[in-house]
Amino acid sequence: MAKLVQFNRIGGPEVLTLNDVEVVAPGAGEVRIRVDAIGLNRAEIMYRDGAYFDQPVLPSTLGYEAAGVIEAVGQGVDGLAEGATVSVVPAFLQSRYGTYGTHIIVPASAVVPRPVHVEPTQAAAVWMAYITAYGPLIESGKVRPGDHVLIAAASSSVGLAAIQLANHIGAIPIATTRGSGKKQRLLDAGAAHVIVTNDEDLPARIKEITGSEGVRLAFDPIAGPGVETLALGIAPDGFLVVYGALDPRPTPLPNAQSYPALNSSTYTLFEITMNPERLRRAVAFVNAGLASGAIAPVVDRIFDLTEIAEAHRYMAANGQVGKIVITVTHDDVTA
Amino acid sequence: MAKLVQFNRIGGPEVLTLNDVEVVAPGAGEVRIRVDAIGLNRAEIMYRDGAYFDQPVLPSTLGYEAAGVIEAVGQGVDGLAEGATVSVVPAFLQSRYGTYGTHIIVPASAVVPRPVHVEPTQAAAVWMAYITAYGPLIESGKVRPGDHVLIAAASSSVGLAAIQLANHIGAIPIATTRGSGKKQRLLDAGAAHVIVTNDEDLPARIKEITGSEGVRLAFDPIAGPGVETLALGIAPDGFLVVYGALDPRPTPLPNAQSYPALNSSTYTLFEITMNPERLRRAVAFVNAGLASGAIAPVVDRIFDLTEIAEAHRYMAANGQVGKIVITVTHDDVTA
Repeated sequence: MAKLVQFNRIGGPEVLTLNDVEVVAPGAGEVRIRVDAIGLNRAEIMYRDGAYFDQPVLPSTLGYEAAGVIEAVGQGVDGLAEGATVSVVPAFLQSRYGTYGTHIIVPASAVVPRPVHVEPTQAAAVWMAYITAYGPLIESGKVRPGDHVLIAAASSSVGLAAIQLANHIGAIPIATTRGSGKKQRLLDAGAAHVIVTNDEDLPARIKEITGSEGVRLAFDPIAGPGVETLALGIAPDGFLVVYGALDPRPTPLPNAQSYPALNSSTYTLFEITMNPERLRRAVAFVNAGLASGAIAPVVDRIFDLTEIAEAHRYMAANGQVGKIVITVTHDDVTA
Repeated sequence: MAKLVQFNRIGGPEVLTLNDVEVVAPGAGEVRIRVDAIGLNRAEIMYRDGAYFDQPVLPSTLGYEAAGVIEAVGQGVDGLAEGATVSVVPAFLQSRYGTYGTHIIVPASAVVPRPVHVEPTQAAAVWMAYITAYGPLIESGKVRPGDHVLIAAASSSVGLAAIQLANHIGAIPIATTRGSGKKQRLLDAGAAHVIVTNDEDLPARIKEITGSEGVRLAFDPIAGPGVETLALGIAPDGFLVVYGALDPRPTPLPNAQSYPALNSSTYTLFEITMNPERLRRAVAFVNAGLASGAIAPVVDRIFDLTEIAEAHRYMAANGQVGKIVITVTHDDVTA
């Protein structure tokens, strides 16, 4: 038997149950993975809440990321073999597949090789965060060495990944955080500057830091009316990339009625993971960084799979700096 | 004496008066131009109304475009000489300079040579329209041969210029217009398809025309909530470029809460005209098109400078297809 986290109705963490299910064979184009660790993401909380663009088909499982070992390969799958240590990246919708379980079925297109020296808890913390940051910082060419990059709500796993990628390419990461409590940890994590938005005037501080030029990229998971404040700190020809919706209020198109021009994009990591060519580049880039040590995911706290509801509550409380990871205990080593 | 259109208070067309003023010498970096024709722009109506991002300093003149002959050159101006036939492009703010007059002072950086075979009324109709369309269609590389381009509110001078530029590079222009009255004229002007937005379902028609792929670029002077409808017709990795604000309602950032990612930019021709390198490219491109005949501005109606208020009323009524041009009569040929 396998265990799978499921929910039968939209709701809070309490709707999540850990159920016994049959271990099934992977279909064509799929693989089955024996899971060692799972990375948690805010998109999963939103999905459970019914607040995500992808609506659950009930009963639903959930989860975008995992690290584990392939234990069965479906028809038509090339390049993946039983026994391979792998990671699962978000290249599917949760209404179709999920990673919260001891043995999971995922599409082969969502599986990337895991370097052997990377521990499962680290591997489960890498992909969502670094691929999300990789898109605007590396793939799109929006950021160049020496550019200032504003990383909003920077203590998330994506924010910390963005700080590392900015430093990796010689850009200058400016982190924002609401209160002063996480300021030192963000500096320790590599932020060149930290702006505490509850206490400081964001555009004025950006002006001060960048010599009135503004940042080349503002990378923002908050959205809502605050994007107009961010826009005031963006350089001419700069970019606002909105990759989340922590603020549920409507998001205006900044500078719609004013000069200068501004480039605003909405973005999710699916831009990368759903495109095999881009995903191949992202994986190569991130693996190179992992090998050199330039990329090192920050794990905030580890929970057991049986504590999944508590882990969701912990994420919703926003106290973390870095990734929340779930470990999976297998009673039977042969699964 | 010269004549200059001025206004002493924010308001409707009636605030515009044609006043006698002294002919003054150009300052450093400026030239004086004896004006033959003036191109009208919606930005001038908005400026007169106090609805433009640049607020008038009263009494104010106005106007962004003109065709004429240089009659005096200020200190430090290179490459421009008395007697040269030139056009004025919008590379300044109306709170500082204006073109509505018989003899005007403008910065040398806003002056481009006019090919001798181009008539003043044509020359006054070229630059705002074609430079505005040039930015997203040519300079930025957003549009490639074979791409579908949606041109919203296409019967404006910019819309018609965008249709010509799209055709010029082998892209496929899809024009929108509110009512069916201008449909045939848009087809005659080169639109491959026309969508009448009062009668047709825009996203459905785009899907039909593009084979469900969507357009590469939607080029929109309307803004407001309608951008979310436009966004439904834009291809993955496509672009929404908002270059006006005909709809005064707030403009949302499309897809802020949903997948897929979308690139939305605000844009004005100042992105080109205020950057000498880009302006040089735009002028070279447009002049090449004028020479070959690929670019031919559409003049809707010609008024005399004494009829400036009526010309503003005519533009506000939205009946035009193409550019509204003002001609200037000089009693004294030596001016």
